Amino acid sequence: MTSKVLIVGAGAIGGFYAALLAKAGAEVSVVCRSDYEHVKQQGFIIDSRILGAWAFTPSQVLNNAADYKGTADYIFLCSKVIPSADRVALIRPAVSADTAVVFIQNGVEIEQEMLAAFPDNEIISGLAFICCNRVKPGEILHLAYGRLALGNLPGAVSNKTLQLCELFKQSGIDCAATENIVTDRWKKCVWNASFNPLSVLSGGLPTLDILQSQEAFVRSIMQEICNIAEACGHRLSNHIVNANIENTYAMLPYKTSMLLDYENGHPMETEAILGNAVRAAKRSGIECPHLESVYALMKLRELQLAEFHKKYNPLYKEPVSQRPDD
Amino acid sequence: MTSKVLIVGAGAIGGFYAALLAKAGAEVSVVCRSDYEHVKQQGFIIDSRILGAWAFTPSQVLNNAADYKGTADYIFLCSKVIPSADRVALIRPAVSADTAVVFIQNGVEIEQEMLAAFPDNEIISGLAFICCNRVKPGEILHLAYGRLALGNLPGAVSNKTLQLCELFKQSGIDCAATENIVTDRWKKCVWNASFNPLSVLSGGLPTLDILQSQEAFVRSIMQEICNIAEACGHRLSNHIVNANIENTYAMLPYKTSMLLDYENGHPMETEAILGNAVRAAKRSGIECPHLESVYALMKLRELQLAEFHKKYNPLYKEPVSQRPDD
Repeated sequence: MTSKVLIVGAGAIGGFYAALLAKAGAEVSVVCRSDYEHVKQQGFIIDSRILGAWAFTPSQVLNNAADYKGTADYIFLCSKVIPSADRVALIRPAVSADTAVVFIQNGVEIEQEMLAAFPDNEIISGLAFICCNRVKPGEILHLAYGRLALGNLPGAVSNKTLQLCELFKQSGIDCAATENIVTDRWKKCVWNASFNPLSVLSGGLPTLDILQSQEAFVRSIMQEICNIAEACGHRLSNHIVNANIENTYAMLPYKTSMLLDYENGHPMETEAILGNAVRAAKRSGIECPHLESVYALMKLRELQLAEFHKKYNPLYKEPVSQRPDD
Repeated sequence: MTSKVLIVGAGAIGGFYAALLAKAGAEVSVVCRSDYEHVKQQGFIIDSRILGAWAFTPSQVLNNAADYKGTADYIFLCSKVIPSADRVALIRPAVSADTAVVFIQNGVEIEQEMLAAFPDNEIISGLAFICCNRVKPGEILHLAYGRLALGNLPGAVSNKTLQLCELFKQSGIDCAATENIVTDRWKKCVWNASFNPLSVLSGGLPTLDILQSQEAFVRSIMQEICNIAEACGHRLSNHIVNANIENTYAMLPYKTSMLLDYENGHPMETEAILGNAVRAAKRSGIECPHLESVYALMKLRELQLAEFHKKYNPLYKEPVSQRPDD
């Protein structure tokens, strides 16, 4: 039977995975706001350096999950995790009794909100390892990688998760089902909590410059994330810091996602990546002074940006709710 | 007998104290580079909100200390402390056997360089507590404060220092002779090492915003400076952190000197204030992770600024030596 999927937050990442599921035969609808008119008229063009180019016409193109017609087998939340976006409200209207709630999002400790809001639904946590950009409305450029990791909460792998993995594999990308998705989230945070804020606070340095100039500092932040993860019951490999450092030396100089958000005036995932990690440390009685410093400085940077907008933009309004694809 | 004084680095602070000494009857010459032509023609105008306005015509206006004619009783170094400026070379040509070397500069652990270079001269370390700006060439606006602290190295007070204090007092500002000038330097660093870099890394927030948003972080940095100072033999008062926090809440929102340098594209005193403190901590086996983070981020910020200049300014040259009044 054809799987019915609704993707909420069909920006670069949401749009890309939506297109893959459609390619594999699922009936895929999308909620997108900023590009709604364009996508409704013309659908998506996916230009992948790995999988080639193809057009993707969603089954339904919506402004809001409440407009979804039918019963979704899976609802994907692919928005950024920022305080002004209510993750639960974004998807709730389209969540039925049999809908599996999947979130492909960055950050740590973002599970509880979903488990509490949908206690009777299957909840699947996902991580995307991908470089892709929205080039213009409805056009997504997939530059590199694309691997997904999916796992049920609490730690398990359901048949629905396996089916989803199968669909992604059929579409041509790697997708692993794991019982340790929460540990994997901490693992991804080792890189994100260091390079993302450092790229912003340095004023825009690429990863290689940061590493060459301040490797010891980067390692301190990474080690603190490992310590917090362990205190939270997610012991990471002893080699993970070295592996992250070596991989980053081997990468081409890279602009982080937080830096791209910063440069485009979009809200950053400071709370999901840094704030949640610092709060987990406090709760567990773990010291993390380097991470704490970086978090404090990111909060100051955000405050300065907000004051700058208020001062110089007569049209500026305090963000109340956030578009899911921002 | 009239004291002969040469002020090297007659920017805002150097020019102001030069003018005060001249007012008190000393024979005062200056080395200034960027405003050399203007000052040579027209001298200085000092506009003080406390002491009124007056014109100051230096005895000699020089491009370089080597051009000084005569024997200075005092040579003042008032430049910023930055790696590209050779403090010793800036003054050496005008230092005679009987010259007292005075430096009115920010930073900690900046004494040894002077003691090593001039082992047979009297060395006087000074701290200025002042708000003053160079408004345009030769014109200095003195906004508030002005107090000086002077002390001989190693810890003592000489007759020459007392004479200097007397001259400053005659000119209308407070000047204290102290046997604990090195301790006072650490004391001043408590505020400088926190608010200076935070104002830059936040993207330009005034002190009050920084404090209201991240008081705990500011306190952590301040406490680390106290710990380092104590390990270096300079125990600061238990109340110093609270006093600094309370005073800053009471101040009008204030742009730090490092922020002004940053905004004007001038080099910052990162090494003198943060680098020297971190190195003192390492040497003494003291942990200072918050300070270390702030220092690492300032180094990244400086790297980004240097790369930006290289990329976008075709006339940009790596700084080789620095003008003393920059």
